[in-house]
Amino acid sequence: MNNRLIGAAVVGQSGGPTAAINASLAGVIEACVGNTDTITKLYGMRNGIEGFLEERLVELNPLFTAEDGSADRKGALIPLMQTPASALGSCRKKLPKPAEDPGFYERLISLFRKYDIRYFFYIGGNDSMDTVAKLAEYLRTSDYEMRVMGVPKTIDNDLMGTDHTPGFGSAAKFIATEMQEIVRDCAVYTVKAVTIVEIMGRDAGWLTAAAALPNLVSGAGPDYVYLPEVPFDMDAFFGDVARAFEKHPNVVIAVSEGARFADGHYVGEGTQSGAVDVFGHKYLEGTAKTLENAVKAKFGCKVRSIELNLPQRCGAHIASARDLSEASLCGQQAVLSAIGGTTGAMIAMERFENRDFPDGYGCRYVPKEISGIANAVRVVPREWIVPENNNVTDECLTWILPLIQGEVQTVWKDGLPAHFVIA
Amino acid sequence: MNNRLIGAAVVGQSGGPTAAINASLAGVIEACVGNTDTITKLYGMRNGIEGFLEERLVELNPLFTAEDGSADRKGALIPLMQTPASALGSCRKKLPKPAEDPGFYERLISLFRKYDIRYFFYIGGNDSMDTVAKLAEYLRTSDYEMRVMGVPKTIDNDLMGTDHTPGFGSAAKFIATEMQEIVRDCAVYTVKAVTIVEIMGRDAGWLTAAAALPNLVSGAGPDYVYLPEVPFDMDAFFGDVARAFEKHPNVVIAVSEGARFADGHYVGEGTQSGAVDVFGHKYLEGTAKTLENAVKAKFGCKVRSIELNLPQRCGAHIASARDLSEASLCGQQAVLSAIGGTTGAMIAMERFENRDFPDGYGCRYVPKEISGIANAVRVVPREWIVPENNNVTDECLTWILPLIQGEVQTVWKDGLPAHFVIA
Repeated sequence: MNNRLIGAAVVGQSGGPTAAINASLAGVIEACVGNTDTITKLYGMRNGIEGFLEERLVELNPLFTAEDGSADRKGALIPLMQTPASALGSCRKKLPKPAEDPGFYERLISLFRKYDIRYFFYIGGNDSMDTVAKLAEYLRTSDYEMRVMGVPKTIDNDLMGTDHTPGFGSAAKFIATEMQEIVRDCAVYTVKAVTIVEIMGRDAGWLTAAAALPNLVSGAGPDYVYLPEVPFDMDAFFGDVARAFEKHPNVVIAVSEGARFADGHYVGEGTQSGAVDVFGHKYLEGTAKTLENAVKAKFGCKVRSIELNLPQRCGAHIASARDLSEASLCGQQAVLSAIGGTTGAMIAMERFENRDFPDGYGCRYVPKEISGIANAVRVVPREWIVPENNNVTDECLTWILPLIQGEVQTVWKDGLPAHFVIA
Repeated sequence: MNNRLIGAAVVGQSGGPTAAINASLAGVIEACVGNTDTITKLYGMRNGIEGFLEERLVELNPLFTAEDGSADRKGALIPLMQTPASALGSCRKKLPKPAEDPGFYERLISLFRKYDIRYFFYIGGNDSMDTVAKLAEYLRTSDYEMRVMGVPKTIDNDLMGTDHTPGFGSAAKFIATEMQEIVRDCAVYTVKAVTIVEIMGRDAGWLTAAAALPNLVSGAGPDYVYLPEVPFDMDAFFGDVARAFEKHPNVVIAVSEGARFADGHYVGEGTQSGAVDVFGHKYLEGTAKTLENAVKAKFGCKVRSIELNLPQRCGAHIASARDLSEASLCGQQAVLSAIGGTTGAMIAMERFENRDFPDGYGCRYVPKEISGIANAVRVVPREWIVPENNNVTDECLTWILPLIQGEVQTVWKDGLPAHFVIA
């Protein structure tokens, strides 16, 4: 075929860690190791494009090739898949616009030339897809032939152009499991108490919506969930809490870190009193902590706030098996599409009704032109949030549910999950 | 035998939830259902002794007996074992001293008589063992014959008279797993950053010690752990952080919620500036948050604090299989010992070298006179904390490690762990 391009490839990870980003890396590696006639060598860049500029590269083929020349699934790829965070490290570098700093891109191209890199795979979220878009844009004006592909990743599920994102399902499964356990925990006493759980996602409420999944599955979910897509009203919130107390003494709330008042101020901006700590810093309380204080003042009852914090994005020990599998397939498809001639695209996920699965869920992986994807945020549709702004609809939960299905057959070492380190 | 006592039994759960307290309940149920010739009926008291006083009782035999009359393991006991928190509910009631309020005990006895209760099983921590001790003390002066047994439970591992406590191993496994994931997550960036993880255990540092387990298993553990058993020194802590920065840019710290300065003040008492929030409440920052602010002021680097909070005590989805098994055996042994004539005792765990297990760990379950157990706290021995007060020894970790071994074959429902509810 006339579009055959032979040379090395480089893969990088960028943005915040997830439980599935190494599964996408494993997918890229598996497809590259399986196609060494075209992709002669696969480099990993340490710390994304930042490390690439410093030529901090690691040859991945030797680490992931079995003795018979095939990809080493059992010894290396599967342990890599169950390792959270970015095994190659990450960065948060925003590239300049090609027209504004062509010198930057010339330096990149000289490095690509040096290592004969003809394929560039970048796994990440919004900023990373921006990197892919800009690099593809520059390459259209360059005589250096290289194919650039984005592999989606973000727990926030807020990327445009794809049904959902790898990493979201695992974070959703962690959050839903924790919520169910927290609700059980909070139910043991008869004393009135409110527990407020703060969940990641500053602009999109997908993860906060996932906190309500136990309501669909077991009934042991939070009384209310508050998403950043709709304005937060303190009086309405107090009314919600009061109504929940009429049903049971243990009220549990899930709230997005990005919950905002109608005037646009974050709930978590907290005190307006100008209070400072011993070091002179203004207190930034966080959303749950602010609501904890508000409920304490209003109801005088026991209140506890819980921030699920980093564990929700790196909870590989309770990853969704479907999520990891999909993440890997996105990585594989990026390689196969690039070999086939595609460039300047992200692998998008398209959901379809698949009667081969008991839950009727199917997903296919298709390259999508990158330019329309970066720098926009996909939020939870208004019609999936109830009119009272304090919960999501069953339709929303039914949409999320397939993404948390399946459990990883974790490999353990001395009682802890075994992780794979790219030394 | 002349000490045979036939009648009903009652079982209760008290104190804070754990991932293993329902396994102990399952053990009590299993042994009672298997001995209905002696224990004719088993009641569960809702919300511990508090609910018992209100006669909120539930008959457990019908819920947990299979068609053939044996204990229903598969349909009921195993699901119960994997359910976190107290399926019967809990309370935090402290009983009066028998000499000071005999009327209270007379009311209890009249209720025992009403239901012909001859066996009393109470699963809990320090306060619950105090309840068992006082009840046993009163019964020695009463003509009502009833046998009273305590079943240990606490994630804090701080009960006297037992090698360790059911619930600790599962919390330790959750904490160690989370720490390993957090350390992976924090390692992805090259920018200097400190992450401070706050762990439960106000007076005993066992759980904080468990945070260091990954150092023994995979190397992916925190740089330092700070226990409440030794004084916390801010300058020494700053020195520790500076030394860690010489090794790598991502410093991870685990600290007990109970960390105290030499003068006895908790680190988490926080600000002395008298800062108040919009509602006029004094800020209580918590230990990790206080250290976050201190490190930010001293080093000017990125700092994040994480409170593992409730999830660490109800993390049934990653329970230690050995812990659940031991918790169940403690419950069973309490019933068997009581049938055999024992009263006023707690089932203690004795560790021994067992060559039948690959890790050489064995445990036996023996009744121990209750009076010496309640109202004292077992802390981490001084010699298991390094002289610099910023870590635990390998000997300490080697002691904890067997308790987190084994993974539960969780039953799942629609992607979430299935829980058993005593309706």
